[in-house]
Amino acid sequence: MGSIAVEELKKLIPNAVIVRRTVPGLKDIPVEMKILMKNEGCDAGIALGWVGPTLTDKITYAVYSLALQLVQLEFEKHIIDVTVHEDEAECEEDLYRIAMDRVRKHVRNLVALLLEREKLSMFAGAGLRQGRPDVGPIVVKKDG
Amino acid sequence: MGSIAVEELKKLIPNAVIVRRTVPGLKDIPVEMKILMKNEGCDAGIALGWVGPTLTDKITYAVYSLALQLVQLEFEKHIIDVTVHEDEAECEEDLYRIAMDRVRKHVRNLVALLLEREKLSMFAGAGLRQGRPDVGPIVVKKDG
Amino acid sequence: MGSIAVEELKKLIPNAVIVRRTVPGLKDIPVEMKILMKNEGCDAGIALGWVGPTLTDKITYAVYSLALQLVQLEFEKHIIDVTVHEDEAECEEDLYRIAMDRVRKHVRNLVALLLEREKLSMFAGAGLRQGRPDVGPIVVKKDG
Amino acid sequence: MGSIAVEELKKLIPNAVIVRRTVPGLKDIPVEMKILMKNEGCDAGIALGWVGPTLTDKITYAVYSLALQLVQLEFEKHIIDVTVHEDEAECEEDLYRIAMDRVRKHVRNLVALLLEREKLSMFAGAGLRQGRPDVGPIVVKKDG
Amino acid sequence: MGSIAVEELKKLIPNAVIVRRTVPGLKDIPVEMKILMKNEGCDAGIALGWVGPTLTDKITYAVYSLALQLVQLEFEKHIIDVTVHEDEAECEEDLYRIAMDRVRKHVRNLVALLLEREKLSMFAGAGLRQGRPDVGPIVVKKDG
Repeated sequence: MGSIAVEELKKLIPNAVIVRRTVPGLKDIPVEMKILMKNEGCDAGIALGWVGPTLTDKITYAVYSLALQLVQLEFEKHIIDVTVHEDEAECEEDLYRIAMDRVRKHVRNLVALLLEREKLSMFAGAGLRQGRPDVGPIVVKKDG
Repeated sequence: MGSIAVEELKKLIPNAVIVRRTVPGLKDIPVEMKILMKNEGCDAGIALGWVGPTLTDKITYAVYSLALQLVQLEFEKHIIDVTVHEDEAECEEDLYRIAMDRVRKHVRNLVALLLEREKLSMFAGAGLRQGRPDVGPIVVKKDG
Repeated sequence: MGSIAVEELKKLIPNAVIVRRTVPGLKDIPVEMKILMKNEGCDAGIALGWVGPTLTDKITYAVYSLALQLVQLEFEKHIIDVTVHEDEAECEEDLYRIAMDRVRKHVRNLVALLLEREKLSMFAGAGLRQGRPDVGPIVVKKDG
Repeated sequence: MGSIAVEELKKLIPNAVIVRRTVPGLKDIPVEMKILMKNEGCDAGIALGWVGPTLTDKITYAVYSLALQLVQLEFEKHIIDVTVHEDEAECEEDLYRIAMDRVRKHVRNLVALLLEREKLSMFAGAGLRQGRPDVGPIVVKKDG
Repeated sequence: MGSIAVEELKKLIPNAVIVRRTVPGLKDIPVEMKILMKNEGCDAGIALGWVGPTLTDKITYAVYSLALQLVQLEFEKHIIDVTVHEDEAECEEDLYRIAMDRVRKHVRNLVALLLEREKLSMFAGAGLRQGRPDVGPIVVKKDG
């Protein structure tokens, strides 16, 4: 999954500096991500994980995923979490296909999010120059 | 769901400044909400999400929802979380109707909460001027 | 439920200042509680909520309840959480009776806890004046 | 359960200062523990609780237990959490016997942990005087 | 499990200083780990635990595991969490074999992670000297 992500990223942002690390298990990702975020000053992260089908695996996924939220909130950076769950498909080939497709799609989503932010920032800057009578609610929409 | 929320908000607070963002998935909302809360100085947030029917989807919802609590507690601002769960209805049309109705109702709730706070603050201010012999328990009532 | 709680509180602490707020849903309680705790300097809180029977409702309860723990730990104040769960009874009347009874009992518990603390503090103060050779374990007992 | 714990503690550390508090429910323990830890400067805590058999009870246990972890991490003190779960036995007498036995055993464990720490500290101090070329991994073993 | 871990560690890093502690239960590990991390300045941790088959055991595992994430994030150090779950095998011998094998493998993983970091740091340093036009996304890959 890692090499697909790197390949897709290089296609979309050719001059991106990419730091890639392999850790033994899902629960080792959040602290590694924090260390890299802090030491390398990254703009975003992608976590790639494989989740087994048992209740223990699901709990592990919950714990990992919550810890990754904490890292995101601390650094105010997006970390896209691409997990493939073994109970999503019935054979290994289907799982493999799901994984490859999900990695590519999530990488594109992340890049869009990073580039869109720049546009948003320009817009917000313009808005500030024109003055703002009131600051209203945010709408964050998530497509189904 | 996003455009319905914006439409409803504009009806209720015509001069509100609304910042709207689309993110790839539920778990990308909390950090995006934090970034917007911090950079745009918003008064409140609305998170719109769609939750699938599997155990993994439910765990994802739990993780997202808890992270959103952390953002609310950090900024001391309400973020209303409007999620539609696929197991709430049997066909897509019903789900769609539930979603539209929920968005409108939650937006009205949020606006009522924001406007009620101003009234409360006035009252509390008056109370302080008259002196307070003792500060007692809070009651936060949630209607069924 | 809110008016029962206020009635019971006034009976037990006639000169208490009570701040009461209604929010749209369970997940809106923690941040509201934090805002009130901070702005009104309350001694304690009571959260009243109604929890549905689905898995989503149970997750929502878990998220709300954990966020309320964070508020309690931050302010070092008790917030009694009175939730009634729809799967606790088979008909609405029973649920209503459970709710009324639970509210009254929890309010009495909270008041006892607040008053007992004052007594404890006096005792602890005396203990300190006599010197303490060693500080030992705490026992916090919870009755069944 | 509280008096058994106190009795056992006094047997093992006769000059310990013990602070004992009763709170209405499981979820009231973490904040009470924090208040006592902070105000009384305790070395350790014991939380005694009874957990019902429903899903709601289990969620409540999870929330309480996680909040207790936060208190432990903040104060860097052990708080042993002795819960008896109603689904552990089929009759009340068995539950009662389990509870009594567990309280005694956990109190002994806690005392051993506190006393062993002192020995460890002496050892670690000696180690430092001899110089340490490198600081390696920790092994924390939990017996089955 | 503890002695296997120590044996494996000594084989791989002969001059490592190893601090080993036994605590009564899973939920006592996170705070002990934090105390050791802080007082002994360790580079990494290994937590060894045994998890029963009931829902209560699984909740305990979730709580322990999340608290261990918090310790890792605070100290920015890896703590590998080696748990053996009783529902993983049908007889004690199989469980024992799984446990032994997992401990050895996880210790090797941890050591690889620590040594690889040094290499990474050298590389990152070189990268900085050559200048970096842009800092791009991180990829953390987890093998299946």
